[in-house]
Amino acid sequence: MRGFEPAEFSARTERAQVMMNAAGLSALLLTTETDVRYFTGYLTRFWESPTRPWFLILPVAGKPVAVIPSIGASLMGQTWIDDIRTWSSPDLQDDGVSLLTDALTELTPLKGRIGMPDGHETHARMPVSDIERLRNRLGSRHITGDHGILRQLRIVKSEAEIAKIETACAIAGRAFARVPEIARAGVPLDEVFRGFQILCLEEGADWVPYLAGGAEQGGYSDVISPASSSPLEDGDVLMLDTGLVWDGYFSDFDRNWSVGPANPDVKSAYARLIEASDAAFEIARPGATAAELFHAINTVLTKASESTDAGRLGHGLGMSLTEWPSLIPTDQTVLEPGMVLTLEPGIAVGGKILVHEENIVVTDDVPRFISPRIGPEMIQL
Amino acid sequence: MRGFEPAEFSARTERAQVMMNAAGLSALLLTTETDVRYFTGYLTRFWESPTRPWFLILPVAGKPVAVIPSIGASLMGQTWIDDIRTWSSPDLQDDGVSLLTDALTELTPLKGRIGMPDGHETHARMPVSDIERLRNRLGSRHITGDHGILRQLRIVKSEAEIAKIETACAIAGRAFARVPEIARAGVPLDEVFRGFQILCLEEGADWVPYLAGGAEQGGYSDVISPASSSPLEDGDVLMLDTGLVWDGYFSDFDRNWSVGPANPDVKSAYARLIEASDAAFEIARPGATAAELFHAINTVLTKASESTDAGRLGHGLGMSLTEWPSLIPTDQTVLEPGMVLTLEPGIAVGGKILVHEENIVVTDDVPRFISPRIGPEMIQL
Repeated sequence: MRGFEPAEFSARTERAQVMMNAAGLSALLLTTETDVRYFTGYLTRFWESPTRPWFLILPVAGKPVAVIPSIGASLMGQTWIDDIRTWSSPDLQDDGVSLLTDALTELTPLKGRIGMPDGHETHARMPVSDIERLRNRLGSRHITGDHGILRQLRIVKSEAEIAKIETACAIAGRAFARVPEIARAGVPLDEVFRGFQILCLEEGADWVPYLAGGAEQGGYSDVISPASSSPLEDGDVLMLDTGLVWDGYFSDFDRNWSVGPANPDVKSAYARLIEASDAAFEIARPGATAAELFHAINTVLTKASESTDAGRLGHGLGMSLTEWPSLIPTDQTVLEPGMVLTLEPGIAVGGKILVHEENIVVTDDVPRFISPRIGPEMIQL
Repeated sequence: MRGFEPAEFSARTERAQVMMNAAGLSALLLTTETDVRYFTGYLTRFWESPTRPWFLILPVAGKPVAVIPSIGASLMGQTWIDDIRTWSSPDLQDDGVSLLTDALTELTPLKGRIGMPDGHETHARMPVSDIERLRNRLGSRHITGDHGILRQLRIVKSEAEIAKIETACAIAGRAFARVPEIARAGVPLDEVFRGFQILCLEEGADWVPYLAGGAEQGGYSDVISPASSSPLEDGDVLMLDTGLVWDGYFSDFDRNWSVGPANPDVKSAYARLIEASDAAFEIARPGATAAELFHAINTVLTKASESTDAGRLGHGLGMSLTEWPSLIPTDQTVLEPGMVLTLEPGIAVGGKILVHEENIVVTDDVPRFISPRIGPEMIQL
């Protein structure tokens, strides 16, 4: 099923309002694609255009109020939102700030506190000078942080959200299974990248926002580079890491292939990666922490090698390619049923790196792989 | 040719530094994908991950300094940037703020003014609370706006940039020409969307960040919606509007097709759109203003219909899908050679809308179409 039942959005709204009450917030002010979509279902690729700001106000009681450019009125009108206020954007003098000020003034009391997400992994998608203008115009009403409410809500996925992420993962799994159709010695890496995106679309992706990877002898130097035009050669390890979208939700996992036979060091390092992600999978139950998953992976890895520069060994996944939490030693997030995580061990071998990534969902009991779990032997092209 | 010669980046840097001097800025602090890439050539799809902040400091003299997560060190090391400072990100306590403070303190004088883009079409891609932390730690050094320097630089494209945009447009043109292979009565619109993205990739797109469109009887309600699964029917007008990327630069134009014969009102409205974009094309020379192009288009349109909700009738194009200027009555931007624009008239007809879009480059003399200019008769599928 595409989209969500209205009950999903009202439940999200009510959960937010309970937290807002506890934090003493009169409203939330949201500006990013994911935060606006979370409470509205407003799904469009038009956010690719950085020109116009978009605002959603979530008052402490009642439904969210959209304050948006008129170009979005028709599509927003198809969501469960009733109160849609628009201006003709772009407006070089006043790009929604007055309309937003009026709405916030109407919807919040004098001295009300208005929360904007301000913590880790957030930003405000509006001009810095307009935030300042808004603060000044609001007078006694005060813009503050969101007390982590968006993080707390979005970090646990509903069954309907998990179903969408699983659909995305299944599409990616089918596309990865077809990589031998497009990749072999002699094919330039950029053609592999194009071909893989085509496979993702053929298998049902709505679009393919993210693809990175590498292919060098015995590993790769980097996991975030665009593709070069160098042809694949025997002895290369090809890695493709994709974040594809189905109905607004991401998959995010990778696969590695050996072009021709892999050397023993690569084989052994790869097997260690699988062992490492399995070690985190084994303990990914309610009550375990993100830090504990980090250590489960890292303990396996440090038997074998120095660490890579990735900065973490996995992360949350959902409406964004990457979300809270992070699998790092300092992230004490306690796992709950409904969290969707990537397990992403990386290992250094012979001056190169290898990275493996799977996607799992935390349940009441044992976790579940939602990427097609792969064995310890690297597939040969 | 992929990428740019180092001379391109040093020229951009020197132009910026002249403006910084004039504005009394000791440094620019840049946080977004396009602004960082503009001065470095750092090209990766990894910005899709919202987790980590990235910083580029452009001092008033010397080369830019990158302050970035360690995961980006290898790729940034392949650019012309020498001074690359990294931290292990994500860091929940201090995600680069100390490292950035130290770098800014070293690179700017006491009481120095540090400019961050803060005007229309900008945002700061870092947590609001970290901007506050940075302000506090900088002490006597002051964060201010960028005085529109990024806008002024990026709004005029170099020959090398224009060549990339033209390549992207040529790819899109070939993909649009093949639409009859994938679209006909009975094909669901979401299959057309997938198929069109595949065509873009087959024709050479690196990726397809943007696709929107519609298909309804005699027009469409909206130009930013994702595709429904409704099959195309005789009498529908299908519109596809794509922003595809080649080497970091966008095309952005659309095409309309009639499924079966178009009715006379649609034919006439469509011809009016072509006439309207041609009217702007005719006057798009150095010295004309964005507002004048708006009026050239709007004069043709208002002969025929009420306006749509788009908010503007064209815009700049380059590293982003949409950029400054806007074709609106209040944008007095004076055209200069090297500006790349979209001309995007929209018209209401029988309760629906039709939108047409072309891409042009402003030269010393007459402008040049860089999308394949189309005639006044809508193509029939």
